[in-house]
Amino acid sequence: MKKVTIGVDIGGTNTAIGVVDAEGNVMVKDNISTPSHGDIDLYISDLATAIKELIKSVKLLNEDIEIMGVGIGAPNGNYYSGTIEYAPNLSFKGMLPFVKLLRKHFPDMEAIALTNDANAAALGEMIYGGAKGMKNFVMYTLGTGVGSGVVVNGDLVYGHDGFAGECGHTTLIPGGRLCGCTALGHLEAYCSAPGMKRTAFELMAHYNATDSLLADKSFKELDSKMIYEAAEKGDKIALEVFEKTGEWLGQGLADTVHHLSPEAVFLFGGPTAAGDYIFTPTKKSMEKHLLPIFQNKIKILPSKLKMGDAAIVGASALVWKELEK
Amino acid sequence: MKKVTIGVDIGGTNTAIGVVDAEGNVMVKDNISTPSHGDIDLYISDLATAIKELIKSVKLLNEDIEIMGVGIGAPNGNYYSGTIEYAPNLSFKGMLPFVKLLRKHFPDMEAIALTNDANAAALGEMIYGGAKGMKNFVMYTLGTGVGSGVVVNGDLVYGHDGFAGECGHTTLIPGGRLCGCTALGHLEAYCSAPGMKRTAFELMAHYNATDSLLADKSFKELDSKMIYEAAEKGDKIALEVFEKTGEWLGQGLADTVHHLSPEAVFLFGGPTAAGDYIFTPTKKSMEKHLLPIFQNKIKILPSKLKMGDAAIVGASALVWKELEK
Repeated sequence: MKKVTIGVDIGGTNTAIGVVDAEGNVMVKDNISTPSHGDIDLYISDLATAIKELIKSVKLLNEDIEIMGVGIGAPNGNYYSGTIEYAPNLSFKGMLPFVKLLRKHFPDMEAIALTNDANAAALGEMIYGGAKGMKNFVMYTLGTGVGSGVVVNGDLVYGHDGFAGECGHTTLIPGGRLCGCTALGHLEAYCSAPGMKRTAFELMAHYNATDSLLADKSFKELDSKMIYEAAEKGDKIALEVFEKTGEWLGQGLADTVHHLSPEAVFLFGGPTAAGDYIFTPTKKSMEKHLLPIFQNKIKILPSKLKMGDAAIVGASALVWKELEK
Repeated sequence: MKKVTIGVDIGGTNTAIGVVDAEGNVMVKDNISTPSHGDIDLYISDLATAIKELIKSVKLLNEDIEIMGVGIGAPNGNYYSGTIEYAPNLSFKGMLPFVKLLRKHFPDMEAIALTNDANAAALGEMIYGGAKGMKNFVMYTLGTGVGSGVVVNGDLVYGHDGFAGECGHTTLIPGGRLCGCTALGHLEAYCSAPGMKRTAFELMAHYNATDSLLADKSFKELDSKMIYEAAEKGDKIALEVFEKTGEWLGQGLADTVHHLSPEAVFLFGGPTAAGDYIFTPTKKSMEKHLLPIFQNKIKILPSKLKMGDAAIVGASALVWKELEK
């Protein structure tokens, strides 16, 4: 019997579902839209149908497959209660008993569990990725926002209420940039992909850099990939964006280290594709901000999860962690 | 048999030793000086003698006493290895195998364990104090410096190397005040007792406040107790010191909550004697800095450990935690 798990990643517009093998490879996958109609029962029913179809298709490939459970990554997903709570980007309002509702469609499934997407990514790193065997590490996911997952003594930290690990919303610069959450100066406003764009625009404004390769892009157009490409061509603004992003991120990582002293911090997401451009200044800044007792001890590593599948794979990892109990 | 533990608190100039009952009361205590001679074997021998004398004296009080172990709180104390590592304020240099050396004098003692003082305080709060029964909480100790201890799932977080929980050295204000550790803008430089003094002097300078009750004190003289007394008399500078300290501390606590989502944060130390003067603005600021998902959920509580004995009592708690294993 080949033991596999199902990972579900719920985003604002799209829900991705995949069957994942024990090594973290996605065997088959599918997408349904995360609806804007707000009818949770209808959505759960559609999701259950899609999961059942996927199970059917993977059993056609190989009859000897055992489905161990369903893991779900969702915004504001609460591991303890299996609820999605007041997620700002979803049409379903209030407190949703998500696991309970899905369970009705899979009464015999051994494990169904839910957490937020960054926590799921950290579990994916631990079960299938670069954190195998690590007992204490932190994962930062850099994308539209900045998420994080904290692992202590081999277990994900959920905190007293299920929501621990929101390092993207620590204050980096008091009174600084407006964050998506409406507070000021959060790490996410500086170190996410849109944060890098904001830095590029600030720097162009500061230097009056009409000669930058980024100077012909609108604020809507510019993205972190373009900044990387411009850096590759030696563009000074683009290079300074990475320097500054690394300086900020390193300060934030040092705060995390002072709380938790992890063996490593894993970075995941679009901006990390820039490699040394982002890792070198981040490492330098983190070391500068650390107490001597922590210096030259904490690794900053790129995630080993595949970018496209990471959310599904991370969510599926939750099942293995459940079955450990 | 009455089961008791021994707590040892190693400070820069003084080492306090106490026998502590199961409710956290100090039955007998003693002090030896933490020597400046740097001879660790001599110091360990003196410490062992003092501990044995205390055990003798407590057995004179009550023959039916069983000593369960020795817990030690020390600067840069590493729980995993039982070592004190490069502690800046001690005359003993390098990496000291403290537990191993003390063990030679107590070959039959069931548990001998060591951690840093703030971690010990957090354990004290958990075993004897206000955090009884709490699985996720954080303790901040405000004194000459700011220490912290983090508890997740009922266990102290030591991190990968034994040194987790240095929240006093997170960056509050980038490029801000010089911290004792030589970095800039750390929480400790704002929210410790000397940090409050620095705030008072900044505010007097800012307002040219020659009429403040604090205006006749030198920088050497002023302490946080005087600031409290002036606040009680309605002194505007003193009142604003508490407002600002609370604003800063609340920002730091919010960062901690975003990492860990604890049930409560306990505050311990001299500045907390000011009660609402410090707790009210701290709570207000923490709430302001929290994501909605965490708001109005996290308690800020005064420590229930007695100020004078807390270090001994905290260190002794380590023994009970060891014996749980």
